[in-house]
This record gives sequence, structure tokens and C-alpha cells, in this order.
Amino acid sequence: MSNIERFFLLLQSRNKKYEQNHKISLFLNTKKITLKQSKTLLFSISANNSMEESILKPRHSLSHILAQAVQRAIDPQAKLGIGPAIDTGFYYDFIFSDGIVFGDEQLKELNKMMVKIVKESQIFHRVELKYEQAKDIIKMLGQEFKIELIDEFKAEGETIFSYYINTIPVAAKDALLKGSNPDYIAKYEKINTYIDSLNLEPSTFNLKSDFITFIDMCEWPHVDNTKEINTDSFKIDKIAGAYWRGNEKNPMMTRIYGLAFEDKAALKSYIEMMEEAKKRDHRILGKQLHIFTFDDEVGPGLPLRLPNGTIIADEVENLAKETEAAYGYKRVRSPHIARQELYLRSGHLPYYKESMFPPMEMDGEVYYLKAMNCPHHHKIYGAEPKSYRDLPLRLAEYGHCYRYEDSGSLFGLMRVRSMAMNDAHIYCTEEQFEDEFMKVVEMYKYYFNLFGVDKFQMRLSTHGKEGLGKKYVDNEKLWIKTEKQVRDIMIKNKVPFVEVANEAAFYGPKIDVQIWSAIGREFTLATNQVDFAVPERFNLTFKDKDGVEKTPICIHRAPLSTHERFIGFLLEHFAGAFPLWLAPEQIKLIPVAEPFVGYANEVVAEMKKNGLRASVDNGDDSFSKKIRNAEVEKIPYIIIVGEKEESTKTLSIREYKSKKQYETGFKEFVDKCLVEVKTRSL
Amino acid sequence: MSNIERFFLLLQSRNKKYEQNHKISLFLNTKKITLKQSKTLLFSISANNSMEESILKPRHSLSHILAQAVQRAIDPQAKLGIGPAIDTGFYYDFIFSDGIVFGDEQLKELNKMMVKIVKESQIFHRVELKYEQAKDIIKMLGQEFKIELIDEFKAEGETIFSYYINTIPVAAKDALLKGSNPDYIAKYEKINTYIDSLNLEPSTFNLKSDFITFIDMCEWPHVDNTKEINTDSFKIDKIAGAYWRGNEKNPMMTRIYGLAFEDKAALKSYIEMMEEAKKRDHRILGKQLHIFTFDDEVGPGLPLRLPNGTIIADEVENLAKETEAAYGYKRVRSPHIARQELYLRSGHLPYYKESMFPPMEMDGEVYYLKAMNCPHHHKIYGAEPKSYRDLPLRLAEYGHCYRYEDSGSLFGLMRVRSMAMNDAHIYCTEEQFEDEFMKVVEMYKYYFNLFGVDKFQMRLSTHGKEGLGKKYVDNEKLWIKTEKQVRDIMIKNKVPFVEVANEAAFYGPKIDVQIWSAIGREFTLATNQVDFAVPERFNLTFKDKDGVEKTPICIHRAPLSTHERFIGFLLEHFAGAFPLWLAPEQIKLIPVAEPFVGYANEVVAEMKKNGLRASVDNGDDSFSKKIRNAEVEKIPYIIIVGEKEESTKTLSIREYKSKKQYETGFKEFVDKCLVEVKTRSL
Repeated sequence: MSNIERFFLLLQSRNKKYEQNHKISLFLNTKKITLKQSKTLLFSISANNSMEESILKPRHSLSHILAQAVQRAIDPQAKLGIGPAIDTGFYYDFIFSDGIVFGDEQLKELNKMMVKIVKESQIFHRVELKYEQAKDIIKMLGQEFKIELIDEFKAEGETIFSYYINTIPVAAKDALLKGSNPDYIAKYEKINTYIDSLNLEPSTFNLKSDFITFIDMCEWPHVDNTKEINTDSFKIDKIAGAYWRGNEKNPMMTRIYGLAFEDKAALKSYIEMMEEAKKRDHRILGKQLHIFTFDDEVGPGLPLRLPNGTIIADEVENLAKETEAAYGYKRVRSPHIARQELYLRSGHLPYYKESMFPPMEMDGEVYYLKAMNCPHHHKIYGAEPKSYRDLPLRLAEYGHCYRYEDSGSLFGLMRVRSMAMNDAHIYCTEEQFEDEFMKVVEMYKYYFNLFGVDKFQMRLSTHGKEGLGKKYVDNEKLWIKTEKQVRDIMIKNKVPFVEVANEAAFYGPKIDVQIWSAIGREFTLATNQVDFAVPERFNLTFKDKDGVEKTPICIHRAPLSTHERFIGFLLEHFAGAFPLWLAPEQIKLIPVAEPFVGYANEVVAEMKKNGLRASVDNGDDSFSKKIRNAEVEKIPYIIIVGEKEESTKTLSIREYKSKKQYETGFKEFVDKCLVEVKTRSL
Repeated sequence: MSNIERFFLLLQSRNKKYEQNHKISLFLNTKKITLKQSKTLLFSISANNSMEESILKPRHSLSHILAQAVQRAIDPQAKLGIGPAIDTGFYYDFIFSDGIVFGDEQLKELNKMMVKIVKESQIFHRVELKYEQAKDIIKMLGQEFKIELIDEFKAEGETIFSYYINTIPVAAKDALLKGSNPDYIAKYEKINTYIDSLNLEPSTFNLKSDFITFIDMCEWPHVDNTKEINTDSFKIDKIAGAYWRGNEKNPMMTRIYGLAFEDKAALKSYIEMMEEAKKRDHRILGKQLHIFTFDDEVGPGLPLRLPNGTIIADEVENLAKETEAAYGYKRVRSPHIARQELYLRSGHLPYYKESMFPPMEMDGEVYYLKAMNCPHHHKIYGAEPKSYRDLPLRLAEYGHCYRYEDSGSLFGLMRVRSMAMNDAHIYCTEEQFEDEFMKVVEMYKYYFNLFGVDKFQMRLSTHGKEGLGKKYVDNEKLWIKTEKQVRDIMIKNKVPFVEVANEAAFYGPKIDVQIWSAIGREFTLATNQVDFAVPERFNLTFKDKDGVEKTPICIHRAPLSTHERFIGFLLEHFAGAFPLWLAPEQIKLIPVAEPFVGYANEVVAEMKKNGLRASVDNGDDSFSKKIRNAEVEKIPYIIIVGEKEESTKTLSIREYKSKKQYETGFKEFVDKCLVEVKTRSL
């Protein structure tokens, strides 16, 4: 399997990893790629992809086992596409012979056959072949898609092809293959004879004692023996359709997915997480809780925020404003467009053009929607002369950006074309950098703690020496110093982080932030970047104490990501049951009968005066239906009022999360709520 | 003067009136206009233009007097362009003979000559002439630009041309004309002889006893005798350049402006207001107080809000959010673009296309920046089914819109291409309409009172019967009912208003709001519109009590205008000395010497904890320079701290507005500030 194939299949399977990786997303958009580029990208993907070899090997081996199982149990003539390891296990693409139908029955049968193969202790042998022999074997196997691949690899200059061959002892053959499809047995009898005639050299097997059960052209690492795989660590998952090589002009294949983890417990926990994630799907919850909507006439990837979603966005924004004010940030506002000259200066044109919306031509000028806020902020910095006394200058804006995303990759609020970013740019001197960076990390930790995010990790991307002056700004001393500062700060602050060399932005080291939701799903939400190059392109300076004009360093940061992605994350994280301060509707009053609506209204009016979001359900539904409705809406407090409550001026409370029910006085309850809101309690 | 000329000159002179008038701005953009259109527009302009005939007549007569004065005092051969009355007086365009230079000297001389002419009790005679005679007279006068006009009017079908002729008694001629340019006298001697030979019929003058001092082709109304004009009610104002007929391919003329008002007092008060307005120019104050900036690479008409300007925008926005929440509005957020399909549905395409930014083409779809928020809000209304229980639904958003404006008409924050609008759309039943509309008016009054706007007026534009089914939605009963409701509400609430027939929007009556700043300048800030047509185009419905799906009425409203225009207004209104709650920097502490910086910092830290915007000036300037700086920045409170203040833990206050100075305790001062901010006191 060539790097190109590997790249594409990784691309298909692990989309979410790439969105941080600008180079890759560009290639994803253009779909133009050379072998050399694919190798660079593959490196970058592998670095992004933290899959350990200990799990990569069984996962990928299982895709071979799946293909063998398909041929042994279902369709000996099945045509094979590609079969990679993925984050959650593996898959393989097939075209089945006419008449073969796939359902739960077949998947069960396949699963059984895979377990059987694993138990057969099949050996994986690797052989390296020259083109002629390699192609002959594929022809013999009848795998036309592989023929297409091998010819392409050859055209790209590959001369040696790696094949993996599974074998069982000849002595056990009849017993083990009993129950397999007779056509499969007949086919592989022939193949064994043919391979025997080739006298492959060097070979780790001997067809006197070994019987070949499966052959695949492949470059991935594998287990040595199927017995290394735990039979209860994997499971056939689902089937889906996929075009050959992802191109809709090619034939549609059947993709069979399998799950595979370290052990039974890990598999079980993943399956449970996915069941939970399904219930917490932000698209479903977003609809059910009236958070956002899309409209065809407005356009794909352009969410309209409904009143409930706007409350959440406003609350998150208030949090950011309050926190940033405490940290000495100043707020600015900038338009959503600019002339192309601005983006030529920033370098977005041409380097980021593919991710930008198309141009607008007006009065002989060309305008673009902004994809990032930095160029506008740089202009604000530069609007008035600055002295060292003005630094650090921290300019913050919940800036609304527009980025082109392929319509196929749009996904609810998680992948959109229109996004409001929790952006800020901190301009500081070299001396101030450490302190400023530390404060940014502090702010991240403050937010994570506030939202109950227990697991997070930063990923520090540093420069590569060989790229200095080409890929990276040519100031090695500054790189080393800044990277050391960043590293030391993270160690000092006990921030969990991993470090990846040669992946920085061209203008400085980059820190991506990964967080895990309450159910253990990973989200890449935010990015921090240290920039010691772009301020110069914008001629940004400050007059230092010594009277000399110097260029500031700039930190780009967005801890709360975009409203879109962050609210998508929060929906899953809280399963829609938001803490009181974020809940669009905080309190629902349900009168047990009509006569108590008056008291309910009085109570609500008082609550509103206190700034709480409360309302009375005085609709036509039955009392119990009203309670159910409020629970479906996941309203934190349901309050029942009836004769007793009205006469004693009390409230009967039902807490959504704890399911606790109790009575309380009005004032005590309001005070409790106000504290909960003020402290942004979970 | 034809309607076309009249239209263009009105257009040139009175731009600010037109921005509310979409039709006119369209023509202004396209510069294509027929005589018939010009007549329609002229009607519309006259309706917009509330200039009384009692002031129009002297103003326009003064433009003739100016032209006569130019010929008598400066240049008998000056070529005349056009000379209309304008809001503040009059002007006339000239091309002077070679060697004529214009300076203060000449303007003074002109002013003297105009006063002299007024005192001569010259009579204005109107004569109507057929083409041949009319043209002969112009030729005799040597006025080549007028020849161009008369030929054009003839080509458009005009057959009768109106001329105004000034005369003095022949008996007084020599005495009166003494001191006039001899060439002027010689020229008009010849003209008198020539006109005498024409035997004009009917004629109100007799050249035996009357001597002609000036002739102009004109259709405007004039005074009968110059003595009707008060000599101290007018004044030559300034000179400027203007292309003949506003076209840069034509010759550049010298435009001489004059001010003219009812009487001396009115003239004086206008001059004082303009002097004050110059000091309060929002562009100058905006720079001085660091409110906003423009950048060429970002683009014209696209303001970048600096931190100080963002504080004001945020405070105004908080006010709107708080007020709208109290009135039961729900907030939404919508993207800044949409597919063209949305605008085809709303009718913005093609009817508003000229005011929209150019299209963006992407993935075979066409996108536009939004020029208004209504279509997006309608989509949010329509996203989920509605019942009568959901109404009235009030959707609010400080929505950022983009509108194309001719680059020549951009003006600071007052005329921009990018604007954040205090928008909301109220969806209600016919029965709810009166109450909802009343609440909108209430909110306007609340805001005006809060900002100290004493003078405001609403301008109710109603339908015209003849336009029903063409220009207006064909439901006369609903028009009459709604207009009556609107009128009654305004009368009931003692809202000053004027009513203009046949100028409504096509979907309902329109209410423009004019307010006057502290120095008496008029601003048209906001517009209210009642819409009973567009909800239907969007298929917006609600299920009524009777189970029937009905269409809601929609009220469009924006009391706080756009951030851009409103802040521009506030800058002038407050002359940059904002009330405490709006002031970007509220309190500046100035230590009398270095040792007291510590105490100043303590005080500031405490103030910040209380949410006040305070800072210490610990720069290198002298103490008195620091005080001057704080005064230039118009900071409401300057606090001096020295030995005495530190030892007694007090503060020495200087109030910017009242210039009062006093000592106070820390807590008293903070409490006073907090009350001032909370009540948004002026």
C-alpha cells in the first residue's frame, strides 16, 4: 500500500484529527497530491496520530483477518479495496459477487469466523517482491483494484512491493478449514500451488509445511501471529458504503467496520461511550433543546442561533468578557471584511486562500470575508503610536469569521462555515512573554475547571533546525528561547503536554489544546500561537525605554474556541443538562391547577426581577405532561405550586440532575440560585 | 430651471435628507434619470423638505442677488451655473474671467454689494417666454451654460420658459449703480436696449421707467421686492469647488455659499451652532478620544473600533439588552451572509441590490452579505412551528449589516458600509399590534430621556389610495386600520409627529424618527416599520386559538440606530464628555509625586473591584501636564492624591463637567459613582 493510499484512507477515517492541520486541509480541499507530498503529510499525520504500535498492529492485522473471513465465510470472489487501521479499530472495503446480501446474520457469521481465524494462530509472513511477481500474484488472486494500485505505485517509482501472507500448518489444514466455503478452499489450493512455483526468496515460510490462507499487498506493521490478538478485544461494528478511493466516479464498495481495543474492558468502555455519545449527539440535543437551526436558503454550515442557543452563547461570552477584563484585556470590534491588500500583507493570500470565502469585487477593489481576526487586530494595534508603557496590550474580540469548508465535511456545529471566535492577541516585549504566556495557560486551566473538564493536554509544536529560514523564521536563538520558555512554563504549571518537533507555525511555536468530554471523547478545541514574525509584516512597533522602535511579540489565543464548536462540545459534555448559569430556561413553575397560576406568576415575576430565567407553564397539557415536558427540556429546577405552597408561601422543588425533591421558602431558593449562577457552579 | 436641474441641485445641497429615501439613493447611485422620474423625485424631495415658502423665497432670491452682486462688484463677464436655495441659505456656481482671484477681500465686497442690492428695493418680475426669445436673451447675456440647459429642456418637451428680471427705477439708476463695475453698467445698458426691442408680452415692467439690473432663467418662487429681505438675516459663508452638473468631466466652477435665515437672531444662532458643531465634529473627537479608526487596507467605510469605542458600544449594547429583556424580547444570532435565494424571497433582490455588497460565488451557489437582518430573523421565526401562545415573539439582535455606499458619500461614522444595528422584529397578531407598537414608542421615549434628547419627532408615512395593489399591498382596510392605530397611539402618548401621505413602505406604514442633538442639529437615526406583507412571503404562520394557521404582523424597529451612527451622534451630543456610565475611562488618579503612586494604585485596584474604569497616570509628564491630559481626554473624574490624602485616606476630586473640586472619603466617592453608573445618570 503506497503512501498515497495510506494518506487517503487515513484521511477518510480520521477526519477530525486534521482540522488543526492547515497543510492537510488545503490538500483535502484541492485533492491534488503527489507522492512526495503524501509522504510529508503522512509524517505529519502519524505525528498527529498518537496510536501506539502495540494497538496499531492488532488493529491492522484484523483488517486482513476480516478480509480472509469474508472470503472463507461469505464470498470467496469478493474484490478487495483498502483495509486500514483506524482510531477505533479497522475496516476493509469490498465489492461482493452478485447475489451476496449483507445483514446482521452475515455480520454475526463474519465475527465468528474472525474469532476462529485468530484462534488458528495464523502466522503473518512479510515478503518483498519485484513488480512482475507482485503483479502476477494479484492477478492470480483476481484483485483488480489492487492491480490498479500496483501499477500506479510503479508509475510513481516504487520498485519493491511488500506482501503479507498468512499461513496455517499444512497438517492442521483440513481440520481448520472445515466449514469454510468450498470455493475458498479450492481457490487457495490453487494459489498455494502457484506461490510454491514462484520460489519466493527470501521466504519465511515453506509450503511443504505451511498452507497459505490469505495474501495482501500491504506496508503496514502486523502482529507476528494472530494468537497475539485477544478474541474479546474486537467486534464487527457496522457496514457503510464508500466509493473506491473516495471518488464518486468510481464504483461503490461495502465498507465493513470493526472495533478493536487493547482488551475486553477497553472495548466495552468504548461501546458504552459511543452509546452515551449517541444520546448526547449535539445535533439531536441542539434540536430538542432549541439551540440552533440550519436553513437551506441561508446556506449550509451557517447556523442560525435560536433564542436558547443565544442565551448560552451570551453567557459564555459574558464569562469570557469578565475573565478577560480581570486579566487586563481590552476589547475591540472589527468589521467582517477587508480589502485583499490586508490579506496579501498578512499572507492569508495566497497561503490560506483555499479556506477563504470567494472575493467580492466593488469599485475596482477586491474584498474578502475574514477567516481570522488577527489582521484586523494588528491594524488596531498600529492605528496609534505605542510606547513600552502600552505593553502588554491584550486586544480581545469575539470575532465572527468565515471559512470555506467542503460541503461534505460540514457537521452540525462542530464543522461550520461561520464561527464566532473567542479571540485575542497579546502584544508584548520579549521580557514580558513568559509572564503573558503563563497567564494564558492559567486562563485555560481556570476555564477547564469551571466547565468540569478533568482531562486535557497541550501539544507543543516546535521548529526544526533544518527548516530555519525556509519553513521557519530564521532566528534560532529566539526559537530555542521561546520554546524553552513555553516548555518550562508548562512544566512549572503542571500542564500535561506532549511535544512534536518540526510542526510549528512559520512565525513561532504552536500549542494545540485537546480536551476530553465527560464521556471521554476527545475534542480539539483551541490553539495558542506565539508569533514573532507577522507583527513585522504589519510594521508594528513600540518605542522602548531606550527610545528605540522595536517590534512586539504577539500571542494568538482562543481558549473558548468558537461559540459553535464550544457549544457543540458543551451539549455532549453536559448531555444538554446545563449548569444553572448556562441553562437557557432555569426554572419552570407548574401550577397543580388553574387557581394557582396567579401565585405562580407572582413567583416568576419576583424571580425575573432577580435576573433568573423562569416561566410558568400555563398551557393546556395535563399536570404530569407538563412535568414530563420540563424534564425533556432538562430544566434545572421544576417548581410545583398548589394550595399548600400558596398558603404557606413556599415552593416544592424538583431538581433535574439530582432528582431530589424538597420544599423551601421563596427567598432561600432564590438566594441559592443566585449563588449557583454567580459562582457558575456545576 | 427644469425639474431635472432642480432635482440635481437639491440632491447636491441636501444629501443628508435623502438617506432615508431608498428610491432617491438608488438614482443617486445610478445617475440615470428621466424628466418624469425627476418630477416624481422632486415631489418626494419637497415632501421630505420641510422648508417653508416664507424662507424658501428670500433664500432663493438671494442667489439671484448674489449673481448680480458678482457681476456688479467683481466680474461682469462671470459665467453662471445654477443657484438654488438650500437648507441653510443659498449658493450660486460661477466661472470667473481670467485673472479674477477670490479671497476674503472679495467675499467681503460681495457681501456689501448684496446688502446694497437688497436696500435698492429691486423688483422681481416674472416673464414667460417661448424658446426662440428665451434663447436669444441667454445668448445676449453670454451665459453658455444656460444655453446648454435650455436646449436640453426643449429636447425634453418644455415649450415655455420662466425668466426672472430685476429692475430699479430708471430715475434712481445713476445714483444706485454708482461704484458698480463700468463694464457691468455698459453690458446692462445694452441688455436694456435689447429687451426693450423685444416688446415682451405680457410684461410687468416698462423700460421707460424701469432699468433691468439682472436676468435669470428660473422656475423657483421669489420675493416680489428685495426690501422684503432683512439685510442682517444673511451672510456670505464660504467658497468651494463644484463640477458643472456634478460631473467630473465638466468644467470646475466656483460655488459661493451664503447663509440665510428668518432674522438676525436665527442667523446668529445657526452660526453659533455650526461653530459648536465644528468643535464637536465626531471625526475629530473620535480621533482625539481614541474611539475609532479607518485603515486603507481594511477599506473605506469600514470602521475599526478602538478599545475606547468598544467600551461605548458595549455599554450601549448592554443598555439595549437590559431594556429589551425587560420588555420580553428574546435574543438571537444570525450569520452575516446568506444564499441569494433568501434575498430573492425577501425581495432585496432585485429591489435593494444596488445597496448590497457584490455577490460571492461558491460551489455553484451565490452568497451575499446581509444588508438587513429581517430575512434571517424571519427564518428563525419559521424554524419551529408557532402557536398563538408564542406571540408576541420579539426577536432582537445587534446584527451587523453591510451596505454599499458610494465612496464619495462616506462620512466618518455617520455614513459607513459596515454597521451594527440595534435591530428587532416583533411578530404579533392584529389584536396585539396596538399594544406592541405602543411599547416600541415607549422604549424610544425611555432612550431619548436617558440620553438627554429633549427634541424629537416622528414622521409617519402612510399609503396612497391610488397605489393600492401597485406600490402598496392591496388591503385598504388593514392600511386604514393600522395607520389609525399608529396615529392614535402617537397622539395618546403625546409623541410629536408629522404625517406624510403616499410614502409608506410597500408592506406597511413607516415611522422615521428624527432627533436633535444638544446643539440643535437634526439627526435621522432610526426607523420603525409595520409589515403586513413580508411574513407571508416567508410562509410565517401561527396556529390561532381556533386551530387555524394565520400570518403574523411584523414590526421592524431599531431605536438605537446603528452603533456607528449612534456613537457619532453621542460624540456631538455630549461633545465627547460622556456621562459616567458611557465614559471609556471614568476616573484618572494623578499622584502629586512619585511616593504617592502606591496609594493611587491601591485606590484604583479597589475601584476596579467595584467595576469602575479607573487608572493611575504614572507617566513621565509633569503634574500639571497630567491634569491637562486627563482634561483633553474628558475623563469625568480626576483624582489628586498626595500626602494629605494618603494620611487621611481621602481623595481630592475634580469633576470635568461641573469643574467642581472637593474632598471626599473613598467609600462615599465609589458609592456615588456606582449610583451614577447604575442609574445611567447624565
